[in-house]
Amino acid sequence: MSTVFAPRSFLFGGDYNPEQWSTDVWLDDIALMKRARVNTVTLGVFSWAMLEPREGEYDADWLDQIIQLLDEAGIGFFLATPTASPPPWFSLAHPDALPVRPDGVRLRHGSRDTYAVSAPVYRAASRRIARFLADRYGAHPGLRGWHLHNEYGTLDYGPHAAAAFRRWLQDRYGSLEALNTAWYTAFWSQRYGSWDEIEPPMATQYLHNPTQVVDFRRFSSDEMLAAFEEQKQEIRASGSSAPVTTNFMLPTWNHLEQWSWSDAQDIVSIDHYLDTVGPDAEAHVAYGSDLTRSWAGGPWVLMEQNATGIRVGNRTFAKTPDRMIRNSLGYIARGAQSSLFFQWRAAAGGSEQWHGALVPHGGGTSRGFDTVVQLGAALESIAEVTQPPASGPLVDAQVGIVWDAEGWWALETPHLPNESMNYSDEARATHRSFWRAGIPTDFVRPGADISQYRLLVVPTLYAMDSVVADWLRAYVDAGGRLLVSYLTGVADENQQVLGGGYPGLLRDLLGIRVDEILPLAPGEKLALSDGLTAEEWTERVDVTGAAVVHRYADGPLAGAPAVTESAVGDGVAVYLSARLDQTSRDAFLAAQAAAVGAGPTLAGSAALGVEAVRRRGAEADYLFLLHHGSEPVRVSGGGTDLLTATDLAEGLVIAPGGVAVVREDQAASVVIESVA
Amino acid sequence: MSTVFAPRSFLFGGDYNPEQWSTDVWLDDIALMKRARVNTVTLGVFSWAMLEPREGEYDADWLDQIIQLLDEAGIGFFLATPTASPPPWFSLAHPDALPVRPDGVRLRHGSRDTYAVSAPVYRAASRRIARFLADRYGAHPGLRGWHLHNEYGTLDYGPHAAAAFRRWLQDRYGSLEALNTAWYTAFWSQRYGSWDEIEPPMATQYLHNPTQVVDFRRFSSDEMLAAFEEQKQEIRASGSSAPVTTNFMLPTWNHLEQWSWSDAQDIVSIDHYLDTVGPDAEAHVAYGSDLTRSWAGGPWVLMEQNATGIRVGNRTFAKTPDRMIRNSLGYIARGAQSSLFFQWRAAAGGSEQWHGALVPHGGGTSRGFDTVVQLGAALESIAEVTQPPASGPLVDAQVGIVWDAEGWWALETPHLPNESMNYSDEARATHRSFWRAGIPTDFVRPGADISQYRLLVVPTLYAMDSVVADWLRAYVDAGGRLLVSYLTGVADENQQVLGGGYPGLLRDLLGIRVDEILPLAPGEKLALSDGLTAEEWTERVDVTGAAVVHRYADGPLAGAPAVTESAVGDGVAVYLSARLDQTSRDAFLAAQAAAVGAGPTLAGSAALGVEAVRRRGAEADYLFLLHHGSEPVRVSGGGTDLLTATDLAEGLVIAPGGVAVVREDQAASVVIESVA
Amino acid sequence: MSTVFAPRSFLFGGDYNPEQWSTDVWLDDIALMKRARVNTVTLGVFSWAMLEPREGEYDADWLDQIIQLLDEAGIGFFLATPTASPPPWFSLAHPDALPVRPDGVRLRHGSRDTYAVSAPVYRAASRRIARFLADRYGAHPGLRGWHLHNEYGTLDYGPHAAAAFRRWLQDRYGSLEALNTAWYTAFWSQRYGSWDEIEPPMATQYLHNPTQVVDFRRFSSDEMLAAFEEQKQEIRASGSSAPVTTNFMLPTWNHLEQWSWSDAQDIVSIDHYLDTVGPDAEAHVAYGSDLTRSWAGGPWVLMEQNATGIRVGNRTFAKTPDRMIRNSLGYIARGAQSSLFFQWRAAAGGSEQWHGALVPHGGGTSRGFDTVVQLGAALESIAEVTQPPASGPLVDAQVGIVWDAEGWWALETPHLPNESMNYSDEARATHRSFWRAGIPTDFVRPGADISQYRLLVVPTLYAMDSVVADWLRAYVDAGGRLLVSYLTGVADENQQVLGGGYPGLLRDLLGIRVDEILPLAPGEKLALSDGLTAEEWTERVDVTGAAVVHRYADGPLAGAPAVTESAVGDGVAVYLSARLDQTSRDAFLAAQAAAVGAGPTLAGSAALGVEAVRRRGAEADYLFLLHHGSEPVRVSGGGTDLLTATDLAEGLVIAPGGVAVVREDQAASVVIESVA
Repeated sequence: MSTVFAPRSFLFGGDYNPEQWSTDVWLDDIALMKRARVNTVTLGVFSWAMLEPREGEYDADWLDQIIQLLDEAGIGFFLATPTASPPPWFSLAHPDALPVRPDGVRLRHGSRDTYAVSAPVYRAASRRIARFLADRYGAHPGLRGWHLHNEYGTLDYGPHAAAAFRRWLQDRYGSLEALNTAWYTAFWSQRYGSWDEIEPPMATQYLHNPTQVVDFRRFSSDEMLAAFEEQKQEIRASGSSAPVTTNFMLPTWNHLEQWSWSDAQDIVSIDHYLDTVGPDAEAHVAYGSDLTRSWAGGPWVLMEQNATGIRVGNRTFAKTPDRMIRNSLGYIARGAQSSLFFQWRAAAGGSEQWHGALVPHGGGTSRGFDTVVQLGAALESIAEVTQPPASGPLVDAQVGIVWDAEGWWALETPHLPNESMNYSDEARATHRSFWRAGIPTDFVRPGADISQYRLLVVPTLYAMDSVVADWLRAYVDAGGRLLVSYLTGVADENQQVLGGGYPGLLRDLLGIRVDEILPLAPGEKLALSDGLTAEEWTERVDVTGAAVVHRYADGPLAGAPAVTESAVGDGVAVYLSARLDQTSRDAFLAAQAAAVGAGPTLAGSAALGVEAVRRRGAEADYLFLLHHGSEPVRVSGGGTDLLTATDLAEGLVIAPGGVAVVREDQAASVVIESVA
Repeated sequence: MSTVFAPRSFLFGGDYNPEQWSTDVWLDDIALMKRARVNTVTLGVFSWAMLEPREGEYDADWLDQIIQLLDEAGIGFFLATPTASPPPWFSLAHPDALPVRPDGVRLRHGSRDTYAVSAPVYRAASRRIARFLADRYGAHPGLRGWHLHNEYGTLDYGPHAAAAFRRWLQDRYGSLEALNTAWYTAFWSQRYGSWDEIEPPMATQYLHNPTQVVDFRRFSSDEMLAAFEEQKQEIRASGSSAPVTTNFMLPTWNHLEQWSWSDAQDIVSIDHYLDTVGPDAEAHVAYGSDLTRSWAGGPWVLMEQNATGIRVGNRTFAKTPDRMIRNSLGYIARGAQSSLFFQWRAAAGGSEQWHGALVPHGGGTSRGFDTVVQLGAALESIAEVTQPPASGPLVDAQVGIVWDAEGWWALETPHLPNESMNYSDEARATHRSFWRAGIPTDFVRPGADISQYRLLVVPTLYAMDSVVADWLRAYVDAGGRLLVSYLTGVADENQQVLGGGYPGLLRDLLGIRVDEILPLAPGEKLALSDGLTAEEWTERVDVTGAAVVHRYADGPLAGAPAVTESAVGDGVAVYLSARLDQTSRDAFLAAQAAAVGAGPTLAGSAALGVEAVRRRGAEADYLFLLHHGSEPVRVSGGGTDLLTATDLAEGLVIAPGGVAVVREDQAASVVIESVA
Repeated sequence: MSTVFAPRSFLFGGDYNPEQWSTDVWLDDIALMKRARVNTVTLGVFSWAMLEPREGEYDADWLDQIIQLLDEAGIGFFLATPTASPPPWFSLAHPDALPVRPDGVRLRHGSRDTYAVSAPVYRAASRRIARFLADRYGAHPGLRGWHLHNEYGTLDYGPHAAAAFRRWLQDRYGSLEALNTAWYTAFWSQRYGSWDEIEPPMATQYLHNPTQVVDFRRFSSDEMLAAFEEQKQEIRASGSSAPVTTNFMLPTWNHLEQWSWSDAQDIVSIDHYLDTVGPDAEAHVAYGSDLTRSWAGGPWVLMEQNATGIRVGNRTFAKTPDRMIRNSLGYIARGAQSSLFFQWRAAAGGSEQWHGALVPHGGGTSRGFDTVVQLGAALESIAEVTQPPASGPLVDAQVGIVWDAEGWWALETPHLPNESMNYSDEARATHRSFWRAGIPTDFVRPGADISQYRLLVVPTLYAMDSVVADWLRAYVDAGGRLLVSYLTGVADENQQVLGGGYPGLLRDLLGIRVDEILPLAPGEKLALSDGLTAEEWTERVDVTGAAVVHRYADGPLAGAPAVTESAVGDGVAVYLSARLDQTSRDAFLAAQAAAVGAGPTLAGSAALGVEAVRRRGAEADYLFLLHHGSEPVRVSGGGTDLLTATDLAEGLVIAPGGVAVVREDQAASVVIESVA
């Protein structure tokens, strides 16, 4: 990312699809937008069939009209390229551009995302429609930015993908010999004698080759990035200088390597959908925000959230108004420059007619829209927060958590000792512990400058290259405290396990050697010393240089080391050999943070159920207080709540579910306490 | 349906496949049939390969012989067209006539139902074999009727289906513009520019278009009906005037729109298989019977049931003799003119060799066959019941339940707020409540004359057109009591949600406006006032004209309206916003019936475990007493039990599991009480 | 099997894949092998791509080198033909030789076993590579035997399989009429008019034809056996006289008819992987061993086991050292001539990089390898045990259990009365009961000489031909005690149910007639008399000549016969009509054994948790004592523990987890007792 995105007020609005509605509805839309103080919409996502109804014939009059209406109302817009959903005529003319599943089934049109990203004809058509839009709207004053495509992430296993995969492999490995070595093809007679023999990991008789699996993920991310770059080139070639982004998704699967993708964008944006209605939804907001701020290296854009619903399993639960507002400010607390939603108006038909919206089916007179109006007012009252500090981070964190998409993919290779281990769960559980303690964290790119962190945590980074291992050693040498968990540094970048005892890449640094992995049974719990409890994963650890901090207290490892600590250079390298249950993980990670003096943003806050986040600004620092708890709290100290324009000296009470955004007069003077 | 089917005695027998057996077994069959007083068999289902062993070469000598044997024994027959299972030679010669799954896999021969109903070559072959049979047997005096095909319901997604689907859509919509509007194709870039672009809902990347899904179901039902009509034309063209039927199936899926199919038949028949061994099996008998009688508009034919087994999940439980007889009479109580079974003799081989039969593997000396002989005698003793009343309904019901296949299909569209909602469950749960209270019900076709019903219930009819909404209003205006449940009238016939608050089509009639839908979590229960309990579904209801009858007592809606009542014209429109658990539903629906004075057939009967059904006849009314309970009951009053030829004046005790069929001397004089 | 395989010491080692490693690792391998006293490795499994890197070009220099190294170290080898995994170049050149799933999906290269065994080009290529190896290594003095292919068992449903299936059917049935009769094709219009119409049981609309299903399994086993025989012919044609084997697998599926396969081999070998970490793992060792010894008719080879892990579900649990050694000796106690493992050295990469190994990732200094060294020493100390007795069986069993692969396949046909019944479960549960009682058992081939058994048990052999039924009758006539369970002899070899009451083939012999089958619900338990408990399956039994031994005590069958006994000729035929739960089965089968005086190998042993097995040898008998229990035991009597060289007269204490191998001085003089 090359620029800091700092609009004068928070972007407020959402995906807007006027092509679904008659023009009288457009006028109602504009009136409702004004009422809610909406200032930004996203146009054009999935509008390809409207914009290019027949190959090479364009019709954007409707778009001109709506942009003019928006413009007159002072509402800006992101403009999307519609390439996530080619029109039916395209699929009929080019069936080879439909995506193919691993079992060879070619998917059909009739939903969305039915494209094979490697199909040349699809790529060419994508460039053309991007260029058409760029030429027509690239210099429009209302244009806030380009929203390329939508939620890249459609994998394809068809012939075009196979050909592109082979080219990518040739680039990566140079020679078949190097590929055969990296892929360990001596196993199961997989040795390749020509590039043509190589395929994506299609349906096969038994387990896939793990390196092939990970390389196909790397390739897919790179291939989609190339498609993104091509569209960006068209934008730039047209002369448009508006910032470019694409909206990430991060559900239970992950098909992009976000660090390199973030490099390629002017603004980093994300679509974020809660996956629980329980209290952990709040931790999920923080997790998504910290990840995206870290990818962006600063302010970012929340491109989509759901105003009224939370989809879990096969049902859409209602999101309460207080949670809707609190979540929206929660994203902002951690760096969002926006509160944008999918979608502006609930669709009457189509596959997502029941998806939440700013304007529900009930229309402008509805509980849902009332909440939107409230949010609009709140955002206006905190507009100054958008301006970033002249220097330094938006949120000051002393704890870093390494995040690596390859770590995710590596844990999806077949036949690991415990296949229920999951990168996403590990990263979220780690982040959750710090969040519960009120301690701010960043996510960290392997190889990045990490001198600002006192504690660096590496959760289950199963595979890594020696450069990353060296980077970790240098961090410790320089005085850092490094916490490495089980199943980290065990394999190299080709998913090959290093010999001589686990974890081969970090054994020396950690001063230990793992001789045996002992997964626990599903649901099984095992006691460690000091009240900690393990689940899922334990290891037989021999200490070769480290001191023992905690031991196994029960089971076949009773008395053996469970957690060790090794002094290296000016720092300390800690090894955690067991998966801790969440409660134990909370206690353990809080202790690790305490060991380096990394404390909560606001003392006592977490215990009262209040999430406190300090976002640094140009003029002042802003203390966001998000009250997830059940009893009112009193806040005092030097500052002013921007939402209610209350001077804290007068005393501010935050009701359960409420929020305050305190412009701090002086650093860390705010005090929080129970009202009772 | 155009004629009233009233044989002189109940049709008794079942599917008979002599082609599986040697002629010595045929003679044993005839002897056993006589012993059991069998009077009807169904021949020819799945006999295509025997009748036409090579394309265009017919061999029906074996069928001539068996028909002659049956004729000599005085046994009549339904004759099936064998088109549900084309022979192997047909599939080899015409692979394009094999059905294709949504993922494009073409299924192969080797089971049954491996036909693509839209394949021209299949349709032509079906006409030919139907005509062959009609020409040869159409005037046979033993022919009771034509049994076209078997259990229509095989969906096909292949090229022939796609072409036929496009033609059907052209008929329905006239223009692509109309289709694009109805299908809401502005969403996700699905706009169609030519008919050729449209496909069945094949495997795709994400959610299907809901209107496409429902239209494909409508098309499939119509397409199968067209195939049925073609066969019927051949029958009629041959000069045969025997009544025509096809046997419906109604398991957990539904591929036919039964009202229009019933119009096309001379006799409405159904195959009915229990899906539980628990007490609810009895409610299932009543449900299937009431549905079929309603479709038929009078007497109907039970074409198949299982004499000895109940298949649930992966096992076949034994059906007890008392249940076998009680169920058989239960169907008759509610209008069946038959007790026919699949199958006469248990097959020695083939895929259903373990399916139940009148003659089990054990043969004529078996517990199973003993029960059959008992049933044959019982049926003979009640033969007079077959004759319908000169006017008026067979079963007099004051409660109607709307039933609509499109309601079923609409609830199978993707991404509804709670996808665990299921039309079949809702309809059965509603019927079950009335059944438990002993209150007779009819099912009602949308738009039908409903002046005879005091209470009309509409369970979860998510989508409807304005004609149906007007029809409901007219019913209330004229003094009816209408009960509408959650998720009814929310969308139009194109599955498009009406704006302005739910349910858009009925909001005014009901005097309410639903602002928000709040599904409950799986297993979650929520208290309403007056002891009612909700599960799965609740709503935030604003009353605009209605009175509140029950309120939510707990949760986020505590205090808000849950059930409302609105006086409209001469009637009342009740709205139920929550899914009630079965116990609460029972209490609630009994109260609704009581409000219009719709009571049980026999007071006190249900509490004793006795199902009482009055079937009206030509000479008298017949009170069927089906004892599902555990203690003996005493019956008295004016009448005669036909099964035991006992005058009720002498006192009749029905043992647990037993049945009485009382020819009533005077209306409603029968009294039931506990023996103890 | 034609020869008795009796090496001078136990084969110790495992699969060795030097092609995965550099030559410096080879030297480490040899050193570690020597340290562990390894004497045998298996080379070449999955080495095709290394041996024939391009079609027709061979490269075996690396194999020459490693064989020379092994030879110098005195280590022998099995040489595998690598045909279980054709190289990528082969699949690219011959896509028709890839296997096809039942739904028509052609699987792709990239795992292993991606071959269509019926493809002529695959068969020809397999012969060529086998011949190449045979010519080059067939006379090598270190060659212990030929290991053809690996774990035959890949089913193919593609066109080559279809063609071969048709040829096989023509051989089996001679005429289409015979096939139509056997397959009962009169059902569902499946009558075949030409051979070309017949296909493998591909994906179809509904249930498959059961005879087609079983015939396809028979064909697949025969087809794979033909491929095996071809390779064997090449071996023999080359002049090599080394014994030939292939390694069986027997997990939850079974694709081979092992008796005929065993006939075709010189050595019978098996790969055996535990499927539980619980105490039942020990019973599983005994089950696999007794099966393989029975198939072999004497000594056999354990070709693979896992040294360090037990894979259950999605995780690999650690195998404890004591279990590793105890299991290894457990296989030997029951006839194994080897302790071979997959694999020698844990792979660094590939799909099974986390599979256990003799040399774990940790290398020679690891808990895993320490255990291997211990085992090597133990095996050397008992080397004399390898020599079989001059006559008579290796293990003397008076109880036989019938085992038939067709029984397995028959229970996988569709729509049985209870599809949760499973041949493998039944066979294992039966064997487990005897194992728990310490009573030795053999498995028995239908039709074999069984005069040595006092008790013959036939678990759930649903389908059989009359020859088998006659063989059972002859056994009883001659004085044997026969125990037949539910669902045995019900259908003939064509899966056709015999009429007149179940079980049609054994009704007269058993003196009973089953009129009705009453499966229980999942989890349901039902009491029989005498404290026995039924689950899953019960039957209504009429006795026609038998005496009643146990009765149903509860439920609809209360008071009816459950177990009967019929005196026939000089023997007794017992019928068990209910599936007993394991505890009841244990008691019941122990009583059956007691009735014929078949007792445990060592009185009192089982109660102490010690498995006692007597393996007969050339010089003496050897009593293996495998201590699975938790308290130490004392052993005395006439003999010497070979592992510790302790004379039992001095008193031998076996610790929990430990093992003794006692060379007995006199028959049955050893006494075991608790130490406490």
